[in-house]
Amino acid sequence: MQIEDLRNSAWRFNSRLRFVMARGEVMAEEYEPVVKEIIKQVREKGDTALLEYTKRFDGEELTEEDLEVPYQELERAYEEIEPEVRTALEVAHERIKRFHEKQLERSFLVEEDGILLGMRVFPLERVGIYVPGGKASYPSTVLMNAVPAVVAGVEEVIMVSPRPNKYTLASAFIAGVSRVFRVGGAQAVAALAYGTERVPKVDKVVGPGNIYVTLAKKLLFGVVDIDMIAGPSEVLVISDGSVDPSWVAWDLLSQAEHDELAGAFLITTDPKHAQEVKLKLEEILDNFPRKDIAQKSLERFGTIFLVEDLEQACVVANYIAPEHLELMVEEPFALLPKIKHAGAVFVGKYTTEPLGDYLLGPNHTLPTGRTARFFSPLGVYDFIKRSSLMYVSKEGFERVAEYAQHIAKAEGLIAHYGAVEVRRKQ
Amino acid sequence: MQIEDLRNSAWRFNSRLRFVMARGEVMAEEYEPVVKEIIKQVREKGDTALLEYTKRFDGEELTEEDLEVPYQELERAYEEIEPEVRTALEVAHERIKRFHEKQLERSFLVEEDGILLGMRVFPLERVGIYVPGGKASYPSTVLMNAVPAVVAGVEEVIMVSPRPNKYTLASAFIAGVSRVFRVGGAQAVAALAYGTERVPKVDKVVGPGNIYVTLAKKLLFGVVDIDMIAGPSEVLVISDGSVDPSWVAWDLLSQAEHDELAGAFLITTDPKHAQEVKLKLEEILDNFPRKDIAQKSLERFGTIFLVEDLEQACVVANYIAPEHLELMVEEPFALLPKIKHAGAVFVGKYTTEPLGDYLLGPNHTLPTGRTARFFSPLGVYDFIKRSSLMYVSKEGFERVAEYAQHIAKAEGLIAHYGAVEVRRKQ
Repeated sequence: MQIEDLRNSAWRFNSRLRFVMARGEVMAEEYEPVVKEIIKQVREKGDTALLEYTKRFDGEELTEEDLEVPYQELERAYEEIEPEVRTALEVAHERIKRFHEKQLERSFLVEEDGILLGMRVFPLERVGIYVPGGKASYPSTVLMNAVPAVVAGVEEVIMVSPRPNKYTLASAFIAGVSRVFRVGGAQAVAALAYGTERVPKVDKVVGPGNIYVTLAKKLLFGVVDIDMIAGPSEVLVISDGSVDPSWVAWDLLSQAEHDELAGAFLITTDPKHAQEVKLKLEEILDNFPRKDIAQKSLERFGTIFLVEDLEQACVVANYIAPEHLELMVEEPFALLPKIKHAGAVFVGKYTTEPLGDYLLGPNHTLPTGRTARFFSPLGVYDFIKRSSLMYVSKEGFERVAEYAQHIAKAEGLIAHYGAVEVRRKQ
Repeated sequence: MQIEDLRNSAWRFNSRLRFVMARGEVMAEEYEPVVKEIIKQVREKGDTALLEYTKRFDGEELTEEDLEVPYQELERAYEEIEPEVRTALEVAHERIKRFHEKQLERSFLVEEDGILLGMRVFPLERVGIYVPGGKASYPSTVLMNAVPAVVAGVEEVIMVSPRPNKYTLASAFIAGVSRVFRVGGAQAVAALAYGTERVPKVDKVVGPGNIYVTLAKKLLFGVVDIDMIAGPSEVLVISDGSVDPSWVAWDLLSQAEHDELAGAFLITTDPKHAQEVKLKLEEILDNFPRKDIAQKSLERFGTIFLVEDLEQACVVANYIAPEHLELMVEEPFALLPKIKHAGAVFVGKYTTEPLGDYLLGPNHTLPTGRTARFFSPLGVYDFIKRSSLMYVSKEGFERVAEYAQHIAKAEGLIAHYGAVEVRRKQ
């Protein structure tokens, strides 16, 4: 955990700050040819290509019949998992669902003399959610990605995940996922985008994944919709030294344990606190089971930034626009109005990120790597689309026709003028 | 204008239908290397590269000082244009603004014992709108792209347009655009995405453009947000023969006159009506000033599809998911509930598309090429972003802590467990 002093006017040029903020800029170029080839093969050869890549990349020899996980397996997983985990997942599901229901958008209609204007809101018909496999195959990912889709009213939620485990399958059952396919990587995204013999074509693909998955989503954007371009995860804690350093240390660590590219950052006004957190982290790490991953992340990217005051802390936080922002200060709500760019803000010392990751209600799929400036948390709004509606009566037509014709003339669009003119004559 | 009979169960395999629906699938691959190079150069060399490409592609020799259009020129253009056009643009602006204000989304807060959960809504800080140059430089494009941004509360709306004309400048003035730069193409998109010495970096780029612009937007998605991947424009008219064939013909033509890739389609239940529209179109085309463009579009893609009944018409329409859908039938509102996939629906015989293009209120930047299945019209929702808010008191913490720990255990995330545990101890 490196300590950097930003208490100067040139803090934006601090090289460590610039380095950690650019950690997501991998050379996607390198992976592009292989991902393009995977997409092409899956588009052309369907399940044959999907099975071949699953064998090559995931080491799994599947037949076409194995591709889909039978629905009974979801129910069985639900029954098999430990009762306390099942209850916890159900509590989480209920809370996530309740929060997301507030995001439902409604169709509207505006009326005036002779003219009706509306916006109709529809759920997407079929969506795909990507759930990473292996060690990072998390039941919470399933809930957070599937619930907003189900709340939006999506008819079919298709989950893809290489080697799903009993917890992800149980969560799929709880969340109301329609079908599960045991495939992953760029090949799974391509299968969802174009459809294969077994995997149905979807309208949108959401969910986190490695560089192959992310690149496949970006390349297929337009063929399907996607949620966002996600990079490595990060947390930024703002602390004024009023909170127990071990609380801060555990919070930083719970980000760092995710993966080696994860970013754990602390901004503090208190140099003594900075040292205490640093020491505490080292102490915990000594006996930490996930030490391998966490230590790499903390050494490469973990940073404590010293700032002049909480005012500057907020300026820096907005500049970093972190995925997760914790306000571990005495008066956290006093800082809130100054925070504009963050995927999610965790206010106050008891609001540790893991609570939000699992069950408070808001989504844990959040914009990373400064994209919180323009991307939003995954939400119900990601699973709907809108369609405009216009109705003009003869009377309404007469009120507006002439104006449209003046603009058509200015634009030199003759038929636009003519389509109005032919109706004016009668 | 070709006539195709879809009155059979295999209509989805009609080769003309498949051909016209795929007309947007250009070989983007071909253009990728050059667009990537443009992006790289602009990112590295800023205005120098921008000026060089403007010279090479637009044939304009600009200096750095010429890049920005002085704001007074916008005001002058507003004063210079014909009074009736000015009034028409102001009427359009007012109507578009009024409609889009209904799309404003509000922050919300959910309260329970000891826990506060919220979603905060913010306007994006700075956005770029792309307005094509030359013949297709339209004042309506400026209004439709700038108004939702201004209504959302965006502080700075940056417009780029090669060779802006007095109408686009006047519209920029009316709509409240902050600054205008006379650049276009992939180089303008790159300048907006990364910022140059003169062109400010934005958070999102919206607006229509040619293949270079579209590709640049797609490649830069993630560095900035973008609105959608747009292809060639299209209209689909459903007619039962109850409407004057010349009305339908003019509507089809007002799509075909846009560009050679534009798609003008008619679905009708009445073979006689099909013939009448076809003849009428040929008759109008004979003396049509924009005949060159319109005829190419109609010959290559223009198609009249014969269907069994209006039921089938709606099924085919949903399948095509057109950008613009006109319901030119006796009981248009009876069809509406059957229509789900269309960028905008124009209901009834007086609701000719040009009215919506210019001034009814809903946006004319719409999803094309079947993407209406998952993309929405441009709207205020495109210019905001959301940020989650969570606050947990000690009391709230005690209610949920245990459940979070059970999930952390199931996921094998030790520090997630620990961050909760360290707070439970005290």
